[in-house]
Amino acid sequence: MTLEPALAELAHRLGPRFSRTGATLAQYSQSETHISGGTPDAVVFPHTADEVSMIARMCARNGVPMVGWGTGTSLEGHALALKGGVMVDFSQMNKMLAVYPEDMLCVVQPGITREALNEELRATGLFFPVDPGANASLGGMAATRASGTTAVRYGTMRDNVLGLEVVLADGRVIRTGTSAPKSSAGYDLTALFVGSEGTLGLTTELTLRLHGQPEAVSAAVCAFPSIADAVDCVIATIQTGIPMARIEFLDATTVAACNAFAGTTLSLDPQLMVEFHGSPAGVQEQTDRFAEIAAEMGCTGFDWAQVTEDRTRLWQMRYNAYPAILALRPGATALVTDVCVPISRLAEAVEETRADIEASPLMGPILGHVGDGNFHAILLVDRNDAAEMAAARALSGRMVERALELGGTISGEHGIGCGKLGYMAAEHGAAWDVMGQIKHALDPAGLMNPGKMVRQP
Amino acid sequence: MTLEPALAELAHRLGPRFSRTGATLAQYSQSETHISGGTPDAVVFPHTADEVSMIARMCARNGVPMVGWGTGTSLEGHALALKGGVMVDFSQMNKMLAVYPEDMLCVVQPGITREALNEELRATGLFFPVDPGANASLGGMAATRASGTTAVRYGTMRDNVLGLEVVLADGRVIRTGTSAPKSSAGYDLTALFVGSEGTLGLTTELTLRLHGQPEAVSAAVCAFPSIADAVDCVIATIQTGIPMARIEFLDATTVAACNAFAGTTLSLDPQLMVEFHGSPAGVQEQTDRFAEIAAEMGCTGFDWAQVTEDRTRLWQMRYNAYPAILALRPGATALVTDVCVPISRLAEAVEETRADIEASPLMGPILGHVGDGNFHAILLVDRNDAAEMAAARALSGRMVERALELGGTISGEHGIGCGKLGYMAAEHGAAWDVMGQIKHALDPAGLMNPGKMVRQP
Repeated sequence: MTLEPALAELAHRLGPRFSRTGATLAQYSQSETHISGGTPDAVVFPHTADEVSMIARMCARNGVPMVGWGTGTSLEGHALALKGGVMVDFSQMNKMLAVYPEDMLCVVQPGITREALNEELRATGLFFPVDPGANASLGGMAATRASGTTAVRYGTMRDNVLGLEVVLADGRVIRTGTSAPKSSAGYDLTALFVGSEGTLGLTTELTLRLHGQPEAVSAAVCAFPSIADAVDCVIATIQTGIPMARIEFLDATTVAACNAFAGTTLSLDPQLMVEFHGSPAGVQEQTDRFAEIAAEMGCTGFDWAQVTEDRTRLWQMRYNAYPAILALRPGATALVTDVCVPISRLAEAVEETRADIEASPLMGPILGHVGDGNFHAILLVDRNDAAEMAAARALSGRMVERALELGGTISGEHGIGCGKLGYMAAEHGAAWDVMGQIKHALDPAGLMNPGKMVRQP
Repeated sequence: MTLEPALAELAHRLGPRFSRTGATLAQYSQSETHISGGTPDAVVFPHTADEVSMIARMCARNGVPMVGWGTGTSLEGHALALKGGVMVDFSQMNKMLAVYPEDMLCVVQPGITREALNEELRATGLFFPVDPGANASLGGMAATRASGTTAVRYGTMRDNVLGLEVVLADGRVIRTGTSAPKSSAGYDLTALFVGSEGTLGLTTELTLRLHGQPEAVSAAVCAFPSIADAVDCVIATIQTGIPMARIEFLDATTVAACNAFAGTTLSLDPQLMVEFHGSPAGVQEQTDRFAEIAAEMGCTGFDWAQVTEDRTRLWQMRYNAYPAILALRPGATALVTDVCVPISRLAEAVEETRADIEASPLMGPILGHVGDGNFHAILLVDRNDAAEMAAARALSGRMVERALELGGTISGEHGIGCGKLGYMAAEHGAAWDVMGQIKHALDPAGLMNPGKMVRQP
């Protein structure tokens, strides 16, 4: 690595959009979670794909690592510069470039955030549905194959990115996908880059699928005697073909945290929060049918939120579940777990996780996007207490092992980063080697986000 | 290539499931269309992934090409053994291995056909929706990223294959995906192999997403004064969020062919055939709203097919469009084109194609899956008439160029095979090189379905 010549040239070319001050570098050495490691040697703020290509060529020529940065909200240390190098911050490439209402598409730069995007779309009657909670950048959401509460209806980033412009490790700029709704022409490079966590290239443009803002919306929250009853209700609802827009699970501990934080008075039982989108008549029919199924599954309390204010309050409570849980133990750090299992195995996965947490010294509310089989335990730890950290890591590891035993995956939506690299072999076996071969073919020097996703060379 | 030792060993190991008789080899040298070239040196009928792995190892060791064969119904010469070698026929790996109704999944071998699969699923209340017309094998449908009439509602093979077992060029057996509904763990190898046309590996098992059989179904056919009016109706319907299960376009020439073949009396106008799935009330609402939109767009004739018999007759007519079109010119061969454009550009793409065909010496009805922007002109040619073949190829080439100019793709659903290899550079530019790099990483000797998909080495 011949770092200094590369940095000098980048400083020269980018002027004020190049920084290597200590304060800046320290800022980009943080992750959203307890995961840490690595400091970049410089941070750059490109404005165009050509500039990103120039940066990549400069890094490639000098053997300097390059790491993409969106909003820094990823949860597995994805954006840590484990081997130093150049941090490519996309916050100044944050424009909506075009909207095509008839095709229900838009083209954006990677730095635009989810909330900014939907603000720009508001007048079009369209919206971008993927909602991971954090106000993440679209480039980052694509990189981690993010999803969230609405994936049960609208899909994940896999389903909602139609095409990409990507700068490769050697500086080549490629385009994947087209603006047609489907294609059978060639390897699905869009799908390959979505979820690749910046290890194959840096995204400089995204073509996104949009959806019509629903004409009518209704929401409800309902309590169940047990986790299994709540999950059975989810399974029955999905099998009936009711197109739920969201179906979220909160265990009793999460409900208690939300009540305390938001002043709500939900019963301290496992709860489902659901939302339906459609025409007024369609939403009415969906809600009626869901209420019937919930009653059959032993639902013990049922509250509709038909008017906007009630619905906003309900989902605000859900959005605030994370700070609400953190408030259960002031000063604590959260270790946020993330697994996904076949829905038929969801009840046992959640119940056994609940039992594991009860048997541990830690507090750990559980919530999840149960329509997808995806759930999180939020483990509250004192990050300076080695025993607690070890207990939390053991719980997380046990969740991952159980997910694999049940036919599931080590990550439903948070991705691998460096936090879950150690589990990749267990999930993928020989297929992990294939990922390594693809990585090596496109980035033989291992400069794109090194230390992530693939086996270390 | 040391062919004879490899074949002798395969003959020894597979016994009667190995053949190199002239009649058999001739049978596997045909494609469904005018595209031809190459004869395999032997055909094998494996029963297990282990046998496929053994075959691949034997071929790899001896430098022998290997080509997968499902039902031979692909339309771009995908399964032609252009460089000879071993044809791997999956017709004896045609079992449904498991159904998981609660997870709405099943696991199948690659040789099972679409119709056999749905026959096996009938009692479960679930079905597999992807319907390319032909009774293709699921392995072949995955290889070509097939779709068809229902993709507008249920997606293509990209959306409905959750995981794969694949034998690689060196005989390694890998598994991609899990049984969880989503995952953020690693490169999306499932999506990479779906649509790779047997050039990266041979699929030996598929995990498929299933859908609930609709409680109620309605269908209709409606006539429009112009192609543009019909397409505007499609755009408005999609934007309204009406979840159509099918929306098919037939131009006036196609309608005439269907009338003549099926004895129907549809008016000789551009027609849309639509189908709605849902609850009885939901279907009623969808059909009413669609009828309103169609009326606004100038629909001049509207026939509901509410009862099953009428609906069956309607869709039977659509299924028979291909033989009906062939019957327009007895003895002719069809050159079936396939492009896909953004829906906003669909009317001009179809109208300009219509005009090109009128200006040519050929007959060429147009029909398509317009909800996806995907359409086909069926060019009727005497394959022994060089001038006609040249005219047909020129028309197909012009369609492809226009699709690219309009932001679309050279193939909506039929794939590349050898028929469209010459257009890959135009669609993908430098991204085609990336496909070649991936191919080279996984199959350095180029033994998997050589002559397809990537640039020739």
